[in-house]
Amino acid sequence: MKKLINNPNHVVEEMIDGYAKAHPQHVRVLSENSRSIVTARETADGKVGVLIGGGSGHEPAFMGYVGPGMADGVAVGNIFASPPPDPILEATKAIDKGAGVIYVYGNYAGDLMNFGMAAELAELEADIQVGKVIVTDDVASAPKEEKEKRRGIAGEFFVTKVAGAASEKGYSLEDVVRVANKANDQTRTMGVGLSPCSLPQTGKPSFELEENEMEIGLGHHGEPGIEKGDLQPADQVADRLVHDILADMPLGEGEKVAVLVNGLGSTTKMELYIVFRRVEQILNEKGIQIHRSFVGDYSTSLEMGGCSVTLIKLDDELTEFVDAPADCPMYVQR
Amino acid sequence: MKKLINNPNHVVEEMIDGYAKAHPQHVRVLSENSRSIVTARETADGKVGVLIGGGSGHEPAFMGYVGPGMADGVAVGNIFASPPPDPILEATKAIDKGAGVIYVYGNYAGDLMNFGMAAELAELEADIQVGKVIVTDDVASAPKEEKEKRRGIAGEFFVTKVAGAASEKGYSLEDVVRVANKANDQTRTMGVGLSPCSLPQTGKPSFELEENEMEIGLGHHGEPGIEKGDLQPADQVADRLVHDILADMPLGEGEKVAVLVNGLGSTTKMELYIVFRRVEQILNEKGIQIHRSFVGDYSTSLEMGGCSVTLIKLDDELTEFVDAPADCPMYVQR
Repeated sequence: MKKLINNPNHVVEEMIDGYAKAHPQHVRVLSENSRSIVTARETADGKVGVLIGGGSGHEPAFMGYVGPGMADGVAVGNIFASPPPDPILEATKAIDKGAGVIYVYGNYAGDLMNFGMAAELAELEADIQVGKVIVTDDVASAPKEEKEKRRGIAGEFFVTKVAGAASEKGYSLEDVVRVANKANDQTRTMGVGLSPCSLPQTGKPSFELEENEMEIGLGHHGEPGIEKGDLQPADQVADRLVHDILADMPLGEGEKVAVLVNGLGSTTKMELYIVFRRVEQILNEKGIQIHRSFVGDYSTSLEMGGCSVTLIKLDDELTEFVDAPADCPMYVQR
Repeated sequence: MKKLINNPNHVVEEMIDGYAKAHPQHVRVLSENSRSIVTARETADGKVGVLIGGGSGHEPAFMGYVGPGMADGVAVGNIFASPPPDPILEATKAIDKGAGVIYVYGNYAGDLMNFGMAAELAELEADIQVGKVIVTDDVASAPKEEKEKRRGIAGEFFVTKVAGAASEKGYSLEDVVRVANKANDQTRTMGVGLSPCSLPQTGKPSFELEENEMEIGLGHHGEPGIEKGDLQPADQVADRLVHDILADMPLGEGEKVAVLVNGLGSTTKMELYIVFRRVEQILNEKGIQIHRSFVGDYSTSLEMGGCSVTLIKLDDELTEFVDAPADCPMYVQR
C-alpha cells in the first residue's frame, strides 16, 4: 500500500515532530525524552495528572488526546508497540502536580509491563503516587466471565475523557481512579474489520481477508476475531455488534448511554453515519436513551477498513464527565 | 472496494438520517426537503445566513460544517453531484433572518447552475437577498491568469469559516461577501492523489493509478491532474505542492498564513503530520509565519488516498475569523 512517508524507520519521529510544530499552543515534546508529549499549559497545583499512551498508528489515539479535559501527557510507542518505561516515567514527572498521576492504557502485555515498571520507578525515584486503570472494553477478545482479560480498544476514549474531566474537577487520585474504573466497567465495544492496514516498515498487510469477507471482533492490531464471513449490509453488521454488546452488558428501558461509532482508518464518515443510524434504531426500539453520540475516527489502525461500536452506560457522574469540554489537537468538545 | 452500506441507492438518505439522529442538539433536517439541513439553534434576527453545499462523499464537507461559527444551513447533493435548486431554496428560506443569505460553494458547473437558480428563486419568491461566493482554490485546475476558472477544493473550509465568523460578528451581507471573497482570493490549494475511491452505486474506481504511481493536482472527483509519476517521499511531495502554491501566490518574509493539510479519505493522520512537518520547514526557512495549523480530514473524496496542502494568507481581519470559535458536529474550535 502506498504511503506518504519518508524513511519508514522514521515515521513516528517525523509524525511527532510535525504534530508538535502544528500545535505549539497545545503540546510540547519533553527535552528529556522525544517520545514524551505533554500539555503546553501550566496545569494547576494539586491537579491529578492524567497520562495515556500506547503504540502509534491509532491516531488520534493516543497522541491527539492531550489537552484540557483529556490527558496531560502521552507516551508514544513505535507502531503498534508499547512505549518503553522511560518516556512514561519522564512524562509522569513532568505532569505531576503533587496529587499523583493516573495511567490509562489498554490491556496488552507490553503496556502492562512498561506502564507497570514506570509506575514503580515513579514511586521509587520521584515519590509520585501512581494509579493504574487498564482498559478492557473489547467484548470479542475474552468471555464475559473474564472481562479483565479483554483488550482495550475504542473505549479508551471514554475512559480517558472521564479521567480527564474528573481530574479537571479536582477529584483526588483515588477518586479519579475510581471513576475511570467505573467508566471501563460500564463500557463495551464490538468491532468489524473489512480490510487490512500495512505497516510502513514491511508494507505487508496486517491480516488477510477475501474480497467479499468481513471479520467480526478483529483486534486493533489485526488480532484474530471471532467470526469470518461474507460482508453483510451495514444494518445487519450493526445488529450483530449491538447484539453482542447488549448480551454482555444488558441495558433496560430508560437506561442512558453514550454511543461511539469509530472508524478504523479508511472507512468513510458516510458509512459510519449509516451504521450509527441503525444503532440508534435498535437502542430506540429498546427504550435505551442515547445521551450523546460520537461518530468518526477516534481510535484507528492505520488505514484499516471497518468500524467499531462502543456503548458506555451512564450514571449522573459519568454523564457529567462525558459532557465536559475538551480542547486537544485532535479532539475538541464545547 | 468493500463498504459498510445497505442499498447503494440509499446511502445519502441513510447518512443524513444517521447524522441528524446523532446530533439533534446541533442540526435538524427540514420537513420541507430531506436534503436541507439547518442549524438547530435559533439564530439572531439580522444575522446574515450562511449556506453551503455540494455533492456528498466529501464529509466532513459540507454537511459536517453546520453550527455556530460556520454555516447555518447546507444543501446535500448525491455523491459527487450538485444539490438541485430546491433544497438550496428551502434552506435559504429557513435560515434567512432578514439580513440576506450568502452562498459559499465550489466552482463546478452543476453548483453554479443550481445555486444560481436558487438565488434567483429566493429573491423572486421570498424577497431574500442572496450573495454568492464561488470558491476557486485549486491551483492545478487552471492557470494563474484564469483563477476564476479553478475548481474549489479544501480551501472551501477557510472560506466557509471566514463567512461564518463574519456573520456571527454581525457583518452585513455585503461585508460577509467581501471578506469571504477576500478569503478565497488569498487561498491556494495543491493536492496529490495516491489511490482512487469507488462510488457505492458502481463499485468502480474513480480513476486509475499504477501500483507505485501518484498524481499531482488530481481533482476531488477524480478529475485529471497535471502530472503522473512515481510516488515520491513525503518531503518531496510537500516540496512540490508548496512550490506550486508559492509560485502562484508569492509570500514574503514576515507574511502570515494559516495552513491546512487535508486528508482525502484513507490517508492516515500519521502521514498528514509527516507532510505538515515538511510544509512547516519550508515556510519557516522562508520566514513565512504560520499563525494556525489544521491537520486532518476536512474535505475528502470518499476513501481516496492522498492529501492536499492549503495556504490562506492572513491579514488582521482574516486572522480574527480563522481564530474564531466554531461548534459543528464534525468541526469544533475553541
